[in-house]
Amino acid sequence: MNRVMLGQSGEGNISADSIQNSPQGLDNAATTARLLITCPDQPGIISAVSTFLYHHGANITDLDQHSSDTQGGKFFLRLEFQTPGLDCSLEALEKNFAARVAKGYQMDWRLSYARDKKRMAIMVSRHDHGLMELLWRTMRGDLPAVIPMVISNHEDLRSEVERFGIAYHCVPVVAETKEQAYAQMADLLDGQVDIIVLARYMQILSPTFVQRFPQQIINIHHSFLPAFVGADPYRQAWERGVKLIGATSHYVTDELDQGPIIEQNVHRVSHRHSAAELKALGQDVERNVLLRAVTWHLEDRVIVDGNKTVVFVK
Amino acid sequence: MNRVMLGQSGEGNISADSIQNSPQGLDNAATTARLLITCPDQPGIISAVSTFLYHHGANITDLDQHSSDTQGGKFFLRLEFQTPGLDCSLEALEKNFAARVAKGYQMDWRLSYARDKKRMAIMVSRHDHGLMELLWRTMRGDLPAVIPMVISNHEDLRSEVERFGIAYHCVPVVAETKEQAYAQMADLLDGQVDIIVLARYMQILSPTFVQRFPQQIINIHHSFLPAFVGADPYRQAWERGVKLIGATSHYVTDELDQGPIIEQNVHRVSHRHSAAELKALGQDVERNVLLRAVTWHLEDRVIVDGNKTVVFVK
Amino acid sequence: MNRVMLGQSGEGNISADSIQNSPQGLDNAATTARLLITCPDQPGIISAVSTFLYHHGANITDLDQHSSDTQGGKFFLRLEFQTPGLDCSLEALEKNFAARVAKGYQMDWRLSYARDKKRMAIMVSRHDHGLMELLWRTMRGDLPAVIPMVISNHEDLRSEVERFGIAYHCVPVVAETKEQAYAQMADLLDGQVDIIVLARYMQILSPTFVQRFPQQIINIHHSFLPAFVGADPYRQAWERGVKLIGATSHYVTDELDQGPIIEQNVHRVSHRHSAAELKALGQDVERNVLLRAVTWHLEDRVIVDGNKTVVFVK
Amino acid sequence: MNRVMLGQSGEGNISADSIQNSPQGLDNAATTARLLITCPDQPGIISAVSTFLYHHGANITDLDQHSSDTQGGKFFLRLEFQTPGLDCSLEALEKNFAARVAKGYQMDWRLSYARDKKRMAIMVSRHDHGLMELLWRTMRGDLPAVIPMVISNHEDLRSEVERFGIAYHCVPVVAETKEQAYAQMADLLDGQVDIIVLARYMQILSPTFVQRFPQQIINIHHSFLPAFVGADPYRQAWERGVKLIGATSHYVTDELDQGPIIEQNVHRVSHRHSAAELKALGQDVERNVLLRAVTWHLEDRVIVDGNKTVVFVK
Repeated sequence: MNRVMLGQSGEGNISADSIQNSPQGLDNAATTARLLITCPDQPGIISAVSTFLYHHGANITDLDQHSSDTQGGKFFLRLEFQTPGLDCSLEALEKNFAARVAKGYQMDWRLSYARDKKRMAIMVSRHDHGLMELLWRTMRGDLPAVIPMVISNHEDLRSEVERFGIAYHCVPVVAETKEQAYAQMADLLDGQVDIIVLARYMQILSPTFVQRFPQQIINIHHSFLPAFVGADPYRQAWERGVKLIGATSHYVTDELDQGPIIEQNVHRVSHRHSAAELKALGQDVERNVLLRAVTWHLEDRVIVDGNKTVVFVK
Repeated sequence: MNRVMLGQSGEGNISADSIQNSPQGLDNAATTARLLITCPDQPGIISAVSTFLYHHGANITDLDQHSSDTQGGKFFLRLEFQTPGLDCSLEALEKNFAARVAKGYQMDWRLSYARDKKRMAIMVSRHDHGLMELLWRTMRGDLPAVIPMVISNHEDLRSEVERFGIAYHCVPVVAETKEQAYAQMADLLDGQVDIIVLARYMQILSPTFVQRFPQQIINIHHSFLPAFVGADPYRQAWERGVKLIGATSHYVTDELDQGPIIEQNVHRVSHRHSAAELKALGQDVERNVLLRAVTWHLEDRVIVDGNKTVVFVK
Repeated sequence: MNRVMLGQSGEGNISADSIQNSPQGLDNAATTARLLITCPDQPGIISAVSTFLYHHGANITDLDQHSSDTQGGKFFLRLEFQTPGLDCSLEALEKNFAARVAKGYQMDWRLSYARDKKRMAIMVSRHDHGLMELLWRTMRGDLPAVIPMVISNHEDLRSEVERFGIAYHCVPVVAETKEQAYAQMADLLDGQVDIIVLARYMQILSPTFVQRFPQQIINIHHSFLPAFVGADPYRQAWERGVKLIGATSHYVTDELDQGPIIEQNVHRVSHRHSAAELKALGQDVERNVLLRAVTWHLEDRVIVDGNKTVVFVK
Repeated sequence: MNRVMLGQSGEGNISADSIQNSPQGLDNAATTARLLITCPDQPGIISAVSTFLYHHGANITDLDQHSSDTQGGKFFLRLEFQTPGLDCSLEALEKNFAARVAKGYQMDWRLSYARDKKRMAIMVSRHDHGLMELLWRTMRGDLPAVIPMVISNHEDLRSEVERFGIAYHCVPVVAETKEQAYAQMADLLDGQVDIIVLARYMQILSPTFVQRFPQQIINIHHSFLPAFVGADPYRQAWERGVKLIGATSHYVTDELDQGPIIEQNVHRVSHRHSAAELKALGQDVERNVLLRAVTWHLEDRVIVDGNKTVVFVK
């Protein structure tokens, strides 16, 4: 079975097998464009956008929208269209759209093309459950990404990562040289990646680092009802006898673990589970929640709106 | 607490409490219109429909669409819009839409108004779990319906139904007079209701009856993996040691339990459950699945496409 | 269909229909005993208990146990047995068990009989979703309880409750006379009920009231990941864009909403749901979580261990 | 991070990390014994078994039981106990148990020791989703097994398997030499493995092969409500518009896909998913269902009772 090549040479052929398996329906990927729009709500937006695309020969194949309020709210739109029938170049289309539609409606917008796979860096410490799922899914062609590098503050996972043909950078983070370490990592990443996934990276990122990659860093952490603050939350959850353990994936902002939520899920537990078992089950939840959040980001399904998200899922 | 009046005088006031509670966001109900469209897929449909509505002053507040295939497939559209800004009467809007948009695109379409609550008859035998949920939810204002009548082949549930101020018709069904019984029920229903819900009605409807109400009868029945044919399926499921029991709600067609599926769900069981307990748990699943299917039908979220459905849910 | 009579005359006949439907397998209820034990863990407990029962002619039909730690932990045991073969009276059995088994192992224990349905009071303010489910399920014979009274601080739900033949006491709670009001309610309840269910009772109980009914008050409240403190939590959850809303049922202790958790669950939501819709969906979760917590309590499946619970479910 | 060694040299050290993560609580694994019993139900069984173990110094740490019927049913018991305090050798314990307890109660029983990891062969064709999960989990120490070999009818997955240090046998199955192929595989497996997992092995096993490994072969296949017979079931499910797709894991018997069910689960789908996407989502369900079924088998949690199972899960 041929496989998608990973790493920086990620433009390798996709095998028939992985196309057939893919939930993303990659068969049209080469010609699929996605348009994301945020603007003040007002009548006529859908008409304006869809008419513009129609007149340029674009065939809209998916449209999802959301209005935060019918009076004075914000409007969010996600469109997929096919490009083969376009009467102009993509550059011309973007330029025309900016001038003739986006400006009048004060739109924040971006147009992306499924054939341009996003470059995804993964940062990890010692737990490999999230990392391995992302590597494996990308290798299978399930995740539309290339992975130029993995960064860790430990050496532990080097051989597992390099086995996939991916560069592994170990940048230790110690108190005295923290700023230097983050500067070094930022330099490794800057311009090389479109998205940074923290797959259980156990260091708190510096504000400078976070600000350099706005809405480009996705984190995963455990979540409970109620929340537990402080050390060893799984032990606290066990001591409190919770019946559900969960995980939350969100964009990273300056405020620790308070950024816009992309996805959450829970798993049922009981008094029979030890604190260690809660942690193991929690890692499975984390793995699945992170996978979904990353998938949706890579498919341009997430729009950030202040401190919340609009996620256009199937 | 004031309550929605049930029965044929269902136009009673909705209290502040039930508006606040309602998942349907009834606050705009008085002025919400819903447009459902099915037509051959081709470029330009969204542009044509949204531009037409925009030019007539309609404010689109929700749009969901589906294309069964980008090449030669069918196109399905559900639109919600607000009517206060319309530049013409609803009659004129419908007439213009038919002439200027629908005809050219060969559309099957219907326009409905949230203020016109659908008239829902419920048919039931002796099990009241589905019936009571529907009566209770409608009373609370959660279900946008009026209930002109309940029909049963038994007297058992009369007092429970009449307590809600709803007419209860008992029409026994016995082998020799079956056709007569169905003719009598069809006459009771014809022109009086928009939708007929079989909430565990244990008789097989006659083909004549079914054909008189196409895509207007919703049924609920148990479902298993694997399926069990014949008598007492819960006992068969118990004997087979299944780990999931389920329920399916669908539109009724001539072919028994083979009509277009609207909703399904399952509940986890184990070897600890007796056949009677499987049945009791199964009834809870049936109750919830039927409630969702009926809610979506009442909110004009379901389009039938041959023997399958497109369900535009939140 | 005959129905279980509610109210204080709750000893009415259970109809064949409700037996058939019951998840509790009521057919052996008349002769089922349940033994709950908590004691320091040590080898030999199961042997001692099961041998004692065997020698007295009890037939163990269900046994579930839990050890919090194999070294120096606590041991929890739930046994169901059939009484027809007993060689002595129930009084003698209890006396002998206390002397010959319980004392040596320092057991906290209680023996209860399924035929003695627990007396359950319901306290409620204005929201009826939890109340109605409990009334309806008890009427159907699904919940093994009698309901001597409903207490509310408002008159709103009187007619809905009295329709079931259950006494409705309205005891307004205002700041100046709060202590008096709670004293009045405690007097109504004391000795009359085995369990008090707060089905959205929106007043904070006085410490005196809570201490009078230790481990006898069950509450339900909404839960989120993360938690939201302060007014209108559903609005806060909506503003934060959570993807799950949940509910927690717990025993009431002096510390507000911090008592031992019995059951929790969540429901998936999205950006499409308004704050009002989150609340409506949250009420469905509350209804189901409360029902399960109450059912397990009534079936003697819950043992409180400090601030957590051991719940022996099927 | 040190890792559990796989393959036939599976006795390698388990690292501190994997112990900490393990849902199986491997810390006591070295001294944990598991006793599984099936026998005709009668009073006194638990007393006899627990008293026997107590007198020999075994400390019971987990006990789960099930009675199929309180009158004339079958009794099923699973016990975990710690062996350090035993007053005799394991051989003596087994011999004594057979003579003094098992014989009198006509017990089918088996005693196993957690330190003796089961030897698991995996058979696979071309789809690697189930295979990879099993390899990965075993490598992480989550699955208490050693994997002596993988057998496939294709060469495709050789490098992926050999990378884990596991022997890969390719045995093509073609019509003319089918019996020979199965004889060859049976010879490879016989005496070398305790359990054979079909992780999407697409050939139908010969009856001779199946009979040589009774209750030792676990299969996974897709499941739907309703069931679809014939080729390409995911396409059939898509054409029928099902709202749930599922998977079933079961022991293999002579009757195709009709053996005792161990575990089932489903995933929600909609009209938006293509047949290829249903298949991809179905593979995720298959992966998780198979993992749970295999885990429970490896932990001696499954007792087969005719054509159903008793599964003692946490």
